[in-house]
Amino acid sequence: MKSLIIASTSTVHGGTPLEYLLEELKIHFNDTNDILFVPYARPGGISHDDYTSSVEKAFRQIHKSIKGIHEFKNPLETLKQSKGIFVGGGNTFVLVNQLYKTKTLQPLKEAINSGIPYLGTSAGSNICGLTMNTTNDMPIVYPPSFKTLGIVPFNINPHYLDPIPNSKHMGETRETRINEFLTYNTQPVIGLREGSWIKVKGNSLKLEGGLKARIFEYGKKPYEIEDNADLNFLK
Amino acid sequence: MKSLIIASTSTVHGGTPLEYLLEELKIHFNDTNDILFVPYARPGGISHDDYTSSVEKAFRQIHKSIKGIHEFKNPLETLKQSKGIFVGGGNTFVLVNQLYKTKTLQPLKEAINSGIPYLGTSAGSNICGLTMNTTNDMPIVYPPSFKTLGIVPFNINPHYLDPIPNSKHMGETRETRINEFLTYNTQPVIGLREGSWIKVKGNSLKLEGGLKARIFEYGKKPYEIEDNADLNFLK
Repeated sequence: MKSLIIASTSTVHGGTPLEYLLEELKIHFNDTNDILFVPYARPGGISHDDYTSSVEKAFRQIHKSIKGIHEFKNPLETLKQSKGIFVGGGNTFVLVNQLYKTKTLQPLKEAINSGIPYLGTSAGSNICGLTMNTTNDMPIVYPPSFKTLGIVPFNINPHYLDPIPNSKHMGETRETRINEFLTYNTQPVIGLREGSWIKVKGNSLKLEGGLKARIFEYGKKPYEIEDNADLNFLK
Repeated sequence: MKSLIIASTSTVHGGTPLEYLLEELKIHFNDTNDILFVPYARPGGISHDDYTSSVEKAFRQIHKSIKGIHEFKNPLETLKQSKGIFVGGGNTFVLVNQLYKTKTLQPLKEAINSGIPYLGTSAGSNICGLTMNTTNDMPIVYPPSFKTLGIVPFNINPHYLDPIPNSKHMGETRETRINEFLTYNTQPVIGLREGSWIKVKGNSLKLEGGLKARIFEYGKKPYEIEDNADLNFLK
């Protein structure tokens, strides 16, 4: 049975990495103490080793041990045999590019579909959608495709940001950008605010974290859904 | 002699489209009343016709007439014979995709190099750099390449935004993103604040508009340059 936590962000304002999710992660990774970490998104361009160390520190609090996928000679086999997977945030273009380059995208999808518990934050959540077209990241590298895992039948916009009142900046709001996406694409988009996550358990798809989310559907006005909403209607 | 205005934005806060630039544009397009408009970036997904109409309205104030490139049977020939070119803002991915699809990128470069006065705003400025890797836009379509005109020997980040004080949002600042770009790429980046433009006249390259700009170079700390700075050092 598929089991995923697809979180908007790794860190909420004022917290330490993953802190707000730790209780949830204890349950999510209940069956294993060993989690395979995919550091490919390299936030701020840090190395795979440094990124893995920082994640190790966060997971130590709930007595889980972390190994980076880059430490293994045969990453595809390692993925298949893992008991829990975490794909961290950073830059979605860098992450997707590396997943294609290392041919990890399809094996990752198969691992998730086989029931290995998955945690994604930010870029690691974005790739659970149909495509990465609704990332907020800067396109600092050119990946071979924008197609991603398609674990959920819609696109994800992590770190969803409401318009800033009285802003004098003329750049587009997040809502404008996602509406623009829907003039070229038809799949729905969920704007996940920081602190929210999508929980996938088999065929159940739920919004969690205590916040509303914003839904964008082709030909409709964007609207809010409540915390704990069932997301199965979205396809 | 090359002649370009590469502007951060079409509109500054509280102004109407191009208003802050009109006096400058009178001089820039002094030799012609006919400007060819490239509406491919389609801000908010509006049609080429609607976009062209709105630009027509702005240019009417300085008695210039506007035709959209999409109105012509032979756009490449039209480009070559134009007396002035404006590429407007919107989504850079959409713009670059369309420039590749219509095979307009190379002819546009040749037209600019032949001395036809060019105005770019936002996405239309971004494409004057080496690549579009430092756009702020959402990747709502997948262009065949991120390579752009390379009229200037660096990359441009239009709508450059300083970090918002006391923000509780955990998404990256613009500075973080551009620094991240420089972990994968070596060309310099200029962060152009709204209200600034780069003026190109032959081999002269100058910052104008009354504001400082922020420069990002590989292996250096980002730093500010003054209004009217010569940009020829940047390569």
